[in-house]
Amino acid sequence: LPAKLPQAGTTIFTVMSALAAEHGAVNLGQGFPDFAADPALLQALTDAMTAGHNQYPPMTGVPALRQAVAAKLNDLYGSAYDADRDVTITAGGTQGLFTALQACVGTGDEVVIIEPAYDSYDPAIRLAGGVPVGVPMTADYRIDWTAVRAAVTPRTRALVLNTPHNPSGRVATAEDLDELERLAEAHDLFVVSDEVYEHMVFDGARHESVARRPCLSERAFLIGSFGKTFHVTGWKVGFVAAPPALSAAFRRLHQYTVFTVHTPTQHALAAYLADPAPWQGLGGFYEAKRDAFRAALAATPLKLLPCEGTYFQTVDYSAVSKLAEADFARWLTTEIGVAAIPLSVFYQRPQERRHVRFCFAKRDETLAQAAGRLARLG
Amino acid sequence: LPAKLPQAGTTIFTVMSALAAEHGAVNLGQGFPDFAADPALLQALTDAMTAGHNQYPPMTGVPALRQAVAAKLNDLYGSAYDADRDVTITAGGTQGLFTALQACVGTGDEVVIIEPAYDSYDPAIRLAGGVPVGVPMTADYRIDWTAVRAAVTPRTRALVLNTPHNPSGRVATAEDLDELERLAEAHDLFVVSDEVYEHMVFDGARHESVARRPCLSERAFLIGSFGKTFHVTGWKVGFVAAPPALSAAFRRLHQYTVFTVHTPTQHALAAYLADPAPWQGLGGFYEAKRDAFRAALAATPLKLLPCEGTYFQTVDYSAVSKLAEADFARWLTTEIGVAAIPLSVFYQRPQERRHVRFCFAKRDETLAQAAGRLARLG
Ligand SMILES: CSCCC(=O)C(=O)O
Ligand SMILES: CSCCC(=O)C(=O)O
Repeated sequence: LPAKLPQAGTTIFTVMSALAAEHGAVNLGQGFPDFAADPALLQALTDAMTAGHNQYPPMTGVPALRQAVAAKLNDLYGSAYDADRDVTITAGGTQGLFTALQACVGTGDEVVIIEPAYDSYDPAIRLAGGVPVGVPMTADYRIDWTAVRAAVTPRTRALVLNTPHNPSGRVATAEDLDELERLAEAHDLFVVSDEVYEHMVFDGARHESVARRPCLSERAFLIGSFGKTFHVTGWKVGFVAAPPALSAAFRRLHQYTVFTVHTPTQHALAAYLADPAPWQGLGGFYEAKRDAFRAALAATPLKLLPCEGTYFQTVDYSAVSKLAEADFARWLTTEIGVAAIPLSVFYQRPQERRHVRFCFAKRDETLAQAAGRLARLG
Repeated sequence: LPAKLPQAGTTIFTVMSALAAEHGAVNLGQGFPDFAADPALLQALTDAMTAGHNQYPPMTGVPALRQAVAAKLNDLYGSAYDADRDVTITAGGTQGLFTALQACVGTGDEVVIIEPAYDSYDPAIRLAGGVPVGVPMTADYRIDWTAVRAAVTPRTRALVLNTPHNPSGRVATAEDLDELERLAEAHDLFVVSDEVYEHMVFDGARHESVARRPCLSERAFLIGSFGKTFHVTGWKVGFVAAPPALSAAFRRLHQYTVFTVHTPTQHALAAYLADPAPWQGLGGFYEAKRDAFRAALAATPLKLLPCEGTYFQTVDYSAVSKLAEADFARWLTTEIGVAAIPLSVFYQRPQERRHVRFCFAKRDETLAQAAGRLARLG
């Protein structure tokens, strides 16, 4: 076999979920809720099936869903996306990322990714023929713009932004977007903006979408995810919003990658989006979970890092163990009974830190149970 | 933009479906049923959601569904696929094809495709870095093995087989598979076997799956589709069965292309597969539709070509018009009110024939209405 991605193992999420299941650990590794989705959303899917929406949808997505997405983005961010021309429904955020990178990266093109970087960016760039260039964040997980600028070469084609940021829980600031704007304009870069946690922003901060800035959105693929926003990560529906030329390039590839996306789910989401309350309440919902989880962890020797957004809490365990992150995450899963994700897997080069990530998209009982087990570390 | 697939327009299926909608034509173009799916299948999806199956499934697919697929293949074809190791659930047949070709085709590799060839093969091969080599079928749509052998070079890496064959409706024979076996062994080729119409085979013929032959299945990616088999083309779930090394390569790419597939649908399909009656009855169901449609078309000047499988009927319209196929298909849609697919789009080089394809996966009333309009051609 030609062995594309010969170095790729099984994703860390799969590995840790399997290990958690095997050892009866509380699974705070892979990011997904352990509580039920809104029954109204499930009902909407049943209604869509019963209404007969079970055959191929339009290649770009069900019109009502594209309209709901464009209206929501334009409302929230003051953008001017056209539902027909600029929005494409994807089979989840991962497929949106994969296809956006295929669309804008050519052979030998370099793409800057900010580390820790979500684990699909690197292989998606390589599969497009590109070269991922990892630029580590600062010690406190801010984007290191000096380092980013130093990494840009004449071969740099694009930059992948992720805000709110998985795994660090940081939220990009307006100043970050100013920096990005200058850089992208100066070097004529595409921006692939992974905003799947857009509604999980805490403490009154605001999500700095590329859609807020015409000089960024004109060169950006904005990636969104309904699975994350509506507590149904297994439904695998997301969207990509991009200006006409980029959307055209995206769709050319999309139609041969998956062609179309689960029809009744698209209709269900379109209907469900008519009520803004579910996503408007999401920040407050997860902020409360964050606060409860942090309070429960205060009794442990784990040091809590800032969590401004996403449903991930990163901790420093150096007071507990000298193990490297991957070993510690395994040990924590098998011996303490709580699964976590080591941050080292999100870097190209080995890191010296002692950080792991917990997902707090869990029932209060689950978080309490995990905290109880983690208290044994003390 | 690097402009991958610069020559790719919108797929013919999208174009003709849009044109049909615009002109109120009976849409016999894009292949999808216009009748309701089994209520028991819809209920199974509702049940799966209600049972809480809404978060990420395992990357390779829900175990119960993989087991059902392996058991069914092994039962039908005498193969020995292992559910855990050899079966991966995909976001539809197209994604299975795309990812299988990515897995086995490297830069500069040639891949033989039999023309008329389903329209995603060519771009999927190109996106993998390969070179599609189209080999036309004989005048009566049999695989031309002499021409295939002549097209094989030292750079040939794989061959895409499609049986039952879309668009011709031909079904490969045991002798075809003998030829393929010899060729694949002699040149050490991979086989990507698109068998999404496996259960639509008529007149007592038998589907010659690569899974029946160890010396083919050991080098083959077998692609299947639940959407086609269960009348829910919009559900976008299929599978790939392949031996361990090929499955491992496939999964390495799959996890970064879509990662996973709609969870509740996978559970619903697993439950629904417990009853073999729905797919066992499929051949007879479509054979009756084929017969009714052919009988209705007998009154028109369209010449019916053989239809041994699939839900497509190809016709020769040379007694009616001198228009080229694409023009005739448009004219038929806008002036006669019946949408069809021109076969010319499935070839690399222009063809001299006058053939279009109708989809007969339609209610009897729909087929009668279409036949009534087509009678005006007389
Ligand atoms: C796509 S599986 C992993 C889910 C996720 O986004 C995460 O845990 O970071
Ligand atoms: C994937 S849309 C086209 C459906 C189909 O397979 C066909 O009409 O040939």
